[in-house]
Amino acid sequence: MEKIIPIKAKKGMKVSDLVHQMSDAGFGARKIGMANRIAGEMFSDKECKVFLGLAGAMVPAGMKGIIIDLIKSDNIHVLVTTGANLTHDLIEALKHNHYHCDSWDDEDFNKKGYDRIYNVLMKNEVYEDLENFFEGKWDELKDEKNIRSLLEKIGSLLPENSESILRVCYDKKIPIYCPALADSGIGLMIWGRLAAGKNIEVNAFDDMKDIIDFAWASKIKGVIYVGGGTPKNFIQQSLQFSSGADYGIQITTDIADSGGSSGAPLEEGKSWGKLKDNAKYVDVRCDATIALPLIFSDFI
Amino acid sequence: MEKIIPIKAKKGMKVSDLVHQMSDAGFGARKIGMANRIAGEMFSDKECKVFLGLAGAMVPAGMKGIIIDLIKSDNIHVLVTTGANLTHDLIEALKHNHYHCDSWDDEDFNKKGYDRIYNVLMKNEVYEDLENFFEGKWDELKDEKNIRSLLEKIGSLLPENSESILRVCYDKKIPIYCPALADSGIGLMIWGRLAAGKNIEVNAFDDMKDIIDFAWASKIKGVIYVGGGTPKNFIQQSLQFSSGADYGIQITTDIADSGGSSGAPLEEGKSWGKLKDNAKYVDVRCDATIALPLIFSDFI
Amino acid sequence: MEKIIPIKAKKGMKVSDLVHQMSDAGFGARKIGMANRIAGEMFSDKECKVFLGLAGAMVPAGMKGIIIDLIKSDNIHVLVTTGANLTHDLIEALKHNHYHCDSWDDEDFNKKGYDRIYNVLMKNEVYEDLENFFEGKWDELKDEKNIRSLLEKIGSLLPENSESILRVCYDKKIPIYCPALADSGIGLMIWGRLAAGKNIEVNAFDDMKDIIDFAWASKIKGVIYVGGGTPKNFIQQSLQFSSGADYGIQITTDIADSGGSSGAPLEEGKSWGKLKDNAKYVDVRCDATIALPLIFSDFI
Amino acid sequence: MEKIIPIKAKKGMKVSDLVHQMSDAGFGARKIGMANRIAGEMFSDKECKVFLGLAGAMVPAGMKGIIIDLIKSDNIHVLVTTGANLTHDLIEALKHNHYHCDSWDDEDFNKKGYDRIYNVLMKNEVYEDLENFFEGKWDELKDEKNIRSLLEKIGSLLPENSESILRVCYDKKIPIYCPALADSGIGLMIWGRLAAGKNIEVNAFDDMKDIIDFAWASKIKGVIYVGGGTPKNFIQQSLQFSSGADYGIQITTDIADSGGSSGAPLEEGKSWGKLKDNAKYVDVRCDATIALPLIFSDFI
Repeated sequence: MEKIIPIKAKKGMKVSDLVHQMSDAGFGARKIGMANRIAGEMFSDKECKVFLGLAGAMVPAGMKGIIIDLIKSDNIHVLVTTGANLTHDLIEALKHNHYHCDSWDDEDFNKKGYDRIYNVLMKNEVYEDLENFFEGKWDELKDEKNIRSLLEKIGSLLPENSESILRVCYDKKIPIYCPALADSGIGLMIWGRLAAGKNIEVNAFDDMKDIIDFAWASKIKGVIYVGGGTPKNFIQQSLQFSSGADYGIQITTDIADSGGSSGAPLEEGKSWGKLKDNAKYVDVRCDATIALPLIFSDFI
Repeated sequence: MEKIIPIKAKKGMKVSDLVHQMSDAGFGARKIGMANRIAGEMFSDKECKVFLGLAGAMVPAGMKGIIIDLIKSDNIHVLVTTGANLTHDLIEALKHNHYHCDSWDDEDFNKKGYDRIYNVLMKNEVYEDLENFFEGKWDELKDEKNIRSLLEKIGSLLPENSESILRVCYDKKIPIYCPALADSGIGLMIWGRLAAGKNIEVNAFDDMKDIIDFAWASKIKGVIYVGGGTPKNFIQQSLQFSSGADYGIQITTDIADSGGSSGAPLEEGKSWGKLKDNAKYVDVRCDATIALPLIFSDFI
Repeated sequence: MEKIIPIKAKKGMKVSDLVHQMSDAGFGARKIGMANRIAGEMFSDKECKVFLGLAGAMVPAGMKGIIIDLIKSDNIHVLVTTGANLTHDLIEALKHNHYHCDSWDDEDFNKKGYDRIYNVLMKNEVYEDLENFFEGKWDELKDEKNIRSLLEKIGSLLPENSESILRVCYDKKIPIYCPALADSGIGLMIWGRLAAGKNIEVNAFDDMKDIIDFAWASKIKGVIYVGGGTPKNFIQQSLQFSSGADYGIQITTDIADSGGSSGAPLEEGKSWGKLKDNAKYVDVRCDATIALPLIFSDFI
Repeated sequence: MEKIIPIKAKKGMKVSDLVHQMSDAGFGARKIGMANRIAGEMFSDKECKVFLGLAGAMVPAGMKGIIIDLIKSDNIHVLVTTGANLTHDLIEALKHNHYHCDSWDDEDFNKKGYDRIYNVLMKNEVYEDLENFFEGKWDELKDEKNIRSLLEKIGSLLPENSESILRVCYDKKIPIYCPALADSGIGLMIWGRLAAGKNIEVNAFDDMKDIIDFAWASKIKGVIYVGGGTPKNFIQQSLQFSSGADYGIQITTDIADSGGSSGAPLEEGKSWGKLKDNAKYVDVRCDATIALPLIFSDFI
């Protein structure tokens, strides 16, 4: 039996020292430490292909840098995310910002043109620049036939060296899948063109072949789920018929008992064949904006 | 100031009596009572169009009947849901069942061919009948051009009087939107056909025009969100540019603090224009399988 | 394997019908149904002594009636609760009320003399009547030597037929234990007397002998934990050295992962010997104001 | 308006750099950063007396070191905690350890003599040494008249330089209050003596005078609540009649909606007068084993 060792924190200590100590402590700290260790194994396993499922509004909350740096350092091979994250990424690539709000009056924000995401604000005026982007680039976008290639094209149209997930994935040739892209600001922009009589033929099912083929071709697979939702599920189903993941890290605040996918422990995936019996995995019940830098700063 | 009145429960009491008493109590009970009252106003407002966003695995958990009966009683005008709910609905329409499991061993379930969703099991063999359904009906499905019409067609192919959400929506001409349909067992079935060289051209963005037009045309709007996710967000964005909801009920177990849409209180929607300043609304923090029958049994 | 049967809700249905249907559904509904069934077995087992641990602010939220009726119907043999619940019970026995508040401005409430407990308010002026009660009855209270007898005495001083937990426990000779009574409004009242130079010698440890003896003497034991905290823990430790519970129902919204007693599943108690290996038990993750009437209305 | 700045994490970075960056990010990260900043202000305000309320099983989870170092560095003036934390502290002072368990079989643990606290184990045999300690030291303990002095005496009996909260508080003359001490392993040990016919007269209410006097005498007050429960409430009520806190940090995973004190936001305290209108405060919804070292390592 392995002893619990009390964490010895001190001014000036390094994050990696703290996180390694956390794996000797209990409760959630232990999980952070284990996730860091599993990430290390996953990333250093040269045969392992890593699928990152990114839900939540991680970009508005300032998590973009960590995701970008994980991709730049070649730790991620497939990104599945929400239209929301990509829309906010694009908004920041268009030189807009998100803002703090530590208290709120939503009726007042509405009058002033601010949209609230918990303790983060976005100016409503960003939609104009989004409109301009899609209107201006429409000829370059309108012939894309699936969501992956549409997102790749958007990435290619952003300035080189943009601190943007879309651009960095384009540069690193990392596919981005986003099954519910229609359900986002980017979707709204495309709707705007459709409503204006323009046309685009993006196939709703095309990307599945792609991701399932990639899962099939990958002998060793690692998964990182931030926040559940469509990104987690889309990765899970690509694994269901391709032998399951060997490594898994899940960060979520939702609970198992209400039966949703976002709160379901990774263990449950074993019954479906989405996780191998001998996989190394951990569920971290923590706000992702706290857990992400702790778990991953060692690798960037 | 309105007094709290202790709930007087007794053997043989009616659900409606309990729920009305709940609105005189505090904490979550009060919210159940308020949701019931707001549902009553929403449903009896003849100008009000009701958008139901249904996430979570509500069908495997036995909530199908309540959804079907709300649709049959003309209380719902638009359904947005996950591919998972529709897949499980189709599975039950194909005469399969879901099963209880009050304790679990996921490795063992995998060996025995059971897939677990918290305390609910599905037999893995259902995929064969799903395959047969899509293979057999492919000629009738392959020309559909958007997700809504594809789902309508699937509904039409089920036996009349099926206890099925897909079939009842078809019968009652209620549109079903499912932006991430690819991300589901139904998606997998379509992938199977594509992988076999067959073709289907379902446009990923087409449905947006439809739901936004409907939102625009509806002067008074009510929303019911069960569990957040894509269904909530897709309705929210159709409201953002069409004046916002007048009535709102949200049932979720996720929390606000981690910034995800699933835990965001309805109030937040005011900043975006997704909820009117004078809307009547309530957030119910409760497992939906407990809250749904309490809130809605009065109306079916 | 037992099938999930979709809940069929309808206007006019009885609570007991709904709850019995819930045990055929999944997720949280199943747990409500199981809790109701286990309560039935626990209450009808004539050898079983039932320990109710009641934390949370259940009295302000209107749950007093259910607790009182469970006691009156002879289903509860020991009550362990917080000083807060007893203080609010006493406040209501002194003819004060609690009030609804569906939105809040705490600075304003402070100015107006209202104290807030989530969506429930209490008038600050209640403290005057509490003061008067303790000042007026001090001679009758000052010689009590342990918390149980002090609470029994307080109960005896309330008007007969009061809708009060304190009074009903006195009438039914049900012991109330409250290890942290100092930590409550009643505690403050006693502090007020002490500060004025009066004296009372209540032994902090005396009640333990009592409850542990009772646990030892009870061959069959059932536990009902509402909300964790000191009440749960005090019962748990009385069981630890007296063979563990045979039946268990826990209602909580806290989670297991952060390691607190309030979120710990009953199962964990098996390692400590607080729950028997063959016990019948269920954890209900639900707001207690919703779960209590559903689970227990059959028995009152 | 203040911009969100994406966190830039990197190998070798310091905890303080990360935490300062967190205050520029959103959601929970922002709260960690704010808590760190408020702690800095609280600790450097020379007039401020700091009340630490420590619930949860923080000692078994390896958080002892941080608490001890905060006390040694003169940042804490009053500690209110649970009997559980003190019992586990004493157990470790008696040279026992806690152990990791990343998966569990509670029936098996019971047979092997291990008691589980989520992912932490304790050997059942510790009770023997606890017994021996209390039996051996009884003559030195039996004359204590209140909980504070009893705990101080226990601290004094531990070896000098013990890594023990009890000993360090004794050395630094920091009072420990523990209203529900009976509800703990230490309580059980005292019960054992009482059951054997020995006697001890610890007054259940005596400590209140002490803590309320101290609160009254402190012009500026800061509160740190870890996990709610009795510790939070006991501090809150000492503040209610002594002008409220000027600084506040709360770390909890419980939610507000179910109305318990453990999940109640600090803001609610304003209505009661437990928090000043102009106080600086933040609620951190996070597992305390993760939040504590992040927030406090700067100060030890």
